[in-house]
Amino acid sequence: MKNDETSVRPLFNKLVLIGVGLIGGSFALALKKAGMVRHIVGLDRHQAALEEAQQLGIIDSHTFDLASALEGADLIVIATPVAQTTKILEAIYPLLQAHTVVTDVGSTKTDVVIAARQALKEKVAQFVPAHPIAGREKNGPSAALSDLYVGKKTVITRLPENTDHLLSRVAQAWQACGAIIHYLTPQEHDQVFASVSHLPHLLAYTLVADIAAKPHADRLFQYAASGFRDFTRIAGSSPEMWRDISIANREALLQELDSYTEQLAHLRQYLQNADAAALEHVYRRAQEARVNWITAIEAAEAQSRYGGD
Amino acid sequence: MKNDETSVRPLFNKLVLIGVGLIGGSFALALKKAGMVRHIVGLDRHQAALEEAQQLGIIDSHTFDLASALEGADLIVIATPVAQTTKILEAIYPLLQAHTVVTDVGSTKTDVVIAARQALKEKVAQFVPAHPIAGREKNGPSAALSDLYVGKKTVITRLPENTDHLLSRVAQAWQACGAIIHYLTPQEHDQVFASVSHLPHLLAYTLVADIAAKPHADRLFQYAASGFRDFTRIAGSSPEMWRDISIANREALLQELDSYTEQLAHLRQYLQNADAAALEHVYRRAQEARVNWITAIEAAEAQSRYGGD
Repeated sequence: MKNDETSVRPLFNKLVLIGVGLIGGSFALALKKAGMVRHIVGLDRHQAALEEAQQLGIIDSHTFDLASALEGADLIVIATPVAQTTKILEAIYPLLQAHTVVTDVGSTKTDVVIAARQALKEKVAQFVPAHPIAGREKNGPSAALSDLYVGKKTVITRLPENTDHLLSRVAQAWQACGAIIHYLTPQEHDQVFASVSHLPHLLAYTLVADIAAKPHADRLFQYAASGFRDFTRIAGSSPEMWRDISIANREALLQELDSYTEQLAHLRQYLQNADAAALEHVYRRAQEARVNWITAIEAAEAQSRYGGD
Repeated sequence: MKNDETSVRPLFNKLVLIGVGLIGGSFALALKKAGMVRHIVGLDRHQAALEEAQQLGIIDSHTFDLASALEGADLIVIATPVAQTTKILEAIYPLLQAHTVVTDVGSTKTDVVIAARQALKEKVAQFVPAHPIAGREKNGPSAALSDLYVGKKTVITRLPENTDHLLSRVAQAWQACGAIIHYLTPQEHDQVFASVSHLPHLLAYTLVADIAAKPHADRLFQYAASGFRDFTRIAGSSPEMWRDISIANREALLQELDSYTEQLAHLRQYLQNADAAALEHVYRRAQEARVNWITAIEAAEAQSRYGGD
């Protein structure tokens, strides 16, 4: 029958998910929905999270025994906070079988690649670093959504050692989740996200901390309105997670911060001089760039919703 | 009849609205809805805006003749960009009748008070400065909403010369629009809004301008996601308006900018030293302060929606 011949064959017989929260859980749900995986084994620091993930159908079984989990695994996905990646890769190394692919979902890539080289040694070709550009403000297994990655980008920062075959296994998995694959080098990746994600987080945290430390903080917060709410939304993010990302990507982040601080010093000068024209010039350039960006983003989103594949 | 005795008597027979856009138009619609005004005369630099405002029922008539507009007016509301306030007050001065109250809606108050003293001279007691804390991303008469101010704050920065009677006329008008009246001095007002509104705008504009000026700006914007979108939403605001506000409030804004830059320098040091604990401490303080703030704001909003008056 034609339908049987073209039906989806699971890409993975056994997937090991280390970290069963929002990011890993959404990946698991999406793969299952696409019929791409037969069995998912979950590992996590928290027993309660494992039980919740299993109840929610994110994983099929769970264990604290890495050796049995890795036995016969096709794919290992590390979906923990980035600071734990090294330790996990070190634990995986002696148990890693030749046919297994390892990938991660971390927000920084240069540090992960260095850690993978050190931990996985001659097996590093089996590690394909990835970063899905999606998230929610909620965390944990209950926040996981099967459509979290639909129309979103996943950046793969391939290693020279990765074979096309291994690379395509990871890319196919993310495509099955609805993601669009982009390729960057780890350095390009870290520079890009230092600029458009890590720096804004640092700036928003700094503003709220600055206000909170003032003697009249209560009065200030009392009059903060919707502009402040949006500007500081990312300052509601997990302090541990963003501490780890900031440290892991501190070289690129310092560079972006210095570039920003330099611009801020120019703005200060314009303001000091009451140079309305110079100030307006910067504001206008920003406003036009942002309008262009949001227009492009919204067009792309509309296309991926209605016309895309 | 009891109903007739308690029915609303218009507070104002004739209201002059200078600037018929979002802020002034919403005020007019709300007052009309509350039955608080008999006739609204509109003035605006743009003939098309006046015609649109009249079609939308924001104003009842319009004119370019200030003298005839001010004849017999109870209340004059200046709802133009702040940089025009001085010129308008100067034009009003020789025509201002003894019983007329003048108010404004500007985002800065110290400069407006100085301008009012210079322009209105011995009549300055008739000027009651105000600032409604509400807005939308859209502008113009068609963006005006009769419920824009419901549950929102309006800050009045009274002058020592204002009588309680004149003050209460302006306060009653805003209360009729659904606003909650707060009193601050002009200096308090400008310090508060420099901190929670003007500085965030400047920071967001600077970030987008900084990114837009980089040679690889296209790639950066390509990977900007929802955190960036919210952080930079205010950088989509009118460059002229925010140029004027920045200049008008530059003393307080410089102070807030310097305080912020100092904090940013600390963060840079922590990052340079890879001081994870110090970084996390700042991030955590910010995150906790923001969670507390948003919780309080949402509770207050829920109350004003369901239980409040």
